Amino acid sequence: MRVVELPEILAALDEDAALAAVEAGFRRYSAGEVEVTAVGHLGFTDPPGDCHVKGAHIAGDDVFVVKLATSFYRNSERGLSSSNGFMAVISAETGEILAVLHDKGQLTDRRTAMAGAIAARAIARPGSATLGIVGAGIQARLQAQLIARVLGLRTVLVWARNGDRAEALAAELGGQAVGLPDLCTRADLIVTTTPATAPLLTDAMIRPGARIVALGADSPGKQELEAAILGRARIIVDSRAQSVDHGEAGWAVRAGLVDAAALVELGTLLASPVAFRPDDIVVADLTGVAVQDAEIAKVVWRGLRPDGEA
Amino acid sequence: MRVVELPEILAALDEDAALAAVEAGFRRYSAGEVEVTAVGHLGFTDPPGDCHVKGAHIAGDDVFVVKLATSFYRNSERGLSSSNGFMAVISAETGEILAVLHDKGQLTDRRTAMAGAIAARAIARPGSATLGIVGAGIQARLQAQLIARVLGLRTVLVWARNGDRAEALAAELGGQAVGLPDLCTRADLIVTTTPATAPLLTDAMIRPGARIVALGADSPGKQELEAAILGRARIIVDSRAQSVDHGEAGWAVRAGLVDAAALVELGTLLASPVAFRPDDIVVADLTGVAVQDAEIAKVVWRGLRPDGEA
Repeated sequence: MRVVELPEILAALDEDAALAAVEAGFRRYSAGEVEVTAVGHLGFTDPPGDCHVKGAHIAGDDVFVVKLATSFYRNSERGLSSSNGFMAVISAETGEILAVLHDKGQLTDRRTAMAGAIAARAIARPGSATLGIVGAGIQARLQAQLIARVLGLRTVLVWARNGDRAEALAAELGGQAVGLPDLCTRADLIVTTTPATAPLLTDAMIRPGARIVALGADSPGKQELEAAILGRARIIVDSRAQSVDHGEAGWAVRAGLVDAAALVELGTLLASPVAFRPDDIVVADLTGVAVQDAEIAKVVWRGLRPDGEA
Repeated sequence: MRVVELPEILAALDEDAALAAVEAGFRRYSAGEVEVTAVGHLGFTDPPGDCHVKGAHIAGDDVFVVKLATSFYRNSERGLSSSNGFMAVISAETGEILAVLHDKGQLTDRRTAMAGAIAARAIARPGSATLGIVGAGIQARLQAQLIARVLGLRTVLVWARNGDRAEALAAELGGQAVGLPDLCTRADLIVTTTPATAPLLTDAMIRPGARIVALGADSPGKQELEAAILGRARIIVDSRAQSVDHGEAGWAVRAGLVDAAALVELGTLLASPVAFRPDDIVVADLTGVAVQDAEIAKVVWRGLRPDGEA
């Protein structure tokens, strides 16, 4: 069992290869070629935290991956990162643990950002120029950087509940901190990255043609978009099963505004692209699927130098 | 993150402390003081194998545990153990990974044996002298050794489908290989340890007063006991939720022979012992609960020398 710490993981991670691998993983997931475990979750209240465990095996692969990621929201008070965890790479031929990638949650952060960029590319209007980022945490930063690069967006707008953090992120990105209604009006593509448990974006803020990638609703009780937005949108989901259970789409389905059968999985959209009309509102609801973990861990695993080599 | 390999794990494992801890864990589980994850499972067909992922946090503990265990049944053809895996000890205050105990499945094997011994002690008739072991694998050996020690049983009978392996295990244990009906007639306590998917013990083999600990049915489709045996038995289960889903009890409940409400959890029995009548047939149906993993991993974690000390 090889133990790989973060510097070596990041050195072995080819971001472009991982982006392509995650995209291929979504296609294979939606084609029914990926076995995933039930999502394991433990919740903590004092101090508040979450632990998620997800595993996936892609048909034909000689390895599979089980990922553990924790988020303890008050760690910053101790000067610690809120994210921790690892990804285990396991032989699908013997069950031996080949490697523990002690990524401290960073591979999860990156594969989440990659999913956002893949979804953004699939739903953005041609000629989009302005990106609106909702939130000012690690996902806000990663999404802004990756989407701006992948889609060539030049202008970045930022809104966050904490105005100081929004200003700081906007400055870092060479963008502008704005009000949320203003962001929704001006952005060609909106990306929401908060852990909100009540809607931030209201139906009144959203104009025809809006394209929204929503990343926050990764467990039950979380919600960033008013359900009425989804009621008049075309909805892309990473996993129909997960999104109906705990994504943005779930709120709209439970409210009777959306038929679950109308949800289109991202992997299906990638395999059979749809020509959205310019005034279609399109929402991509991403809850995080284990196939993303499997794909990024495999890219790292294959990129590692043989053990012991410099 | 400390990585601990098997020799150090076994040196740090105080078996008596672990037995007491697992017993206490069952009580706390049945008292509703343990949060467990959904059981994660991946199945493999070529070559055949299973991966189980289970996690638990015991209320008030400053650590929690996530366990991964694999079984690849043809590994022996390559000269490898069929079992592999690890247990991760994680801070419940920061989410940091404190240790990965690379136990290769051996802590799972041991905590399973401990559960068998705890259940055996709780249901055995006073004055029991003869132990009957069904199966000849690692659990058969561990159960025989631990139960014989804990209960002071002097005579061991062994039956397995493979007669040569039964003879070998009987010789190793100073016991006797016998036919299965003979074993059921003579043994005061019967322990079943096979991965059977169809009943081995039939209702006709079981006499009044029989005490049976059944360990094999740890995932859907597995069954060692004819359901009619449970129909006339008092039934102890490690986890009502799991046993109804995939234990021996599940077959009997689905067949309408047993009311799920009549199942008594082991932790409840330990907290409030029952005086069984001498002619009661009692079956303990053990599917394996994450609290066992948490307890044995905690004993190892506390028993480790400070990192770097000899």
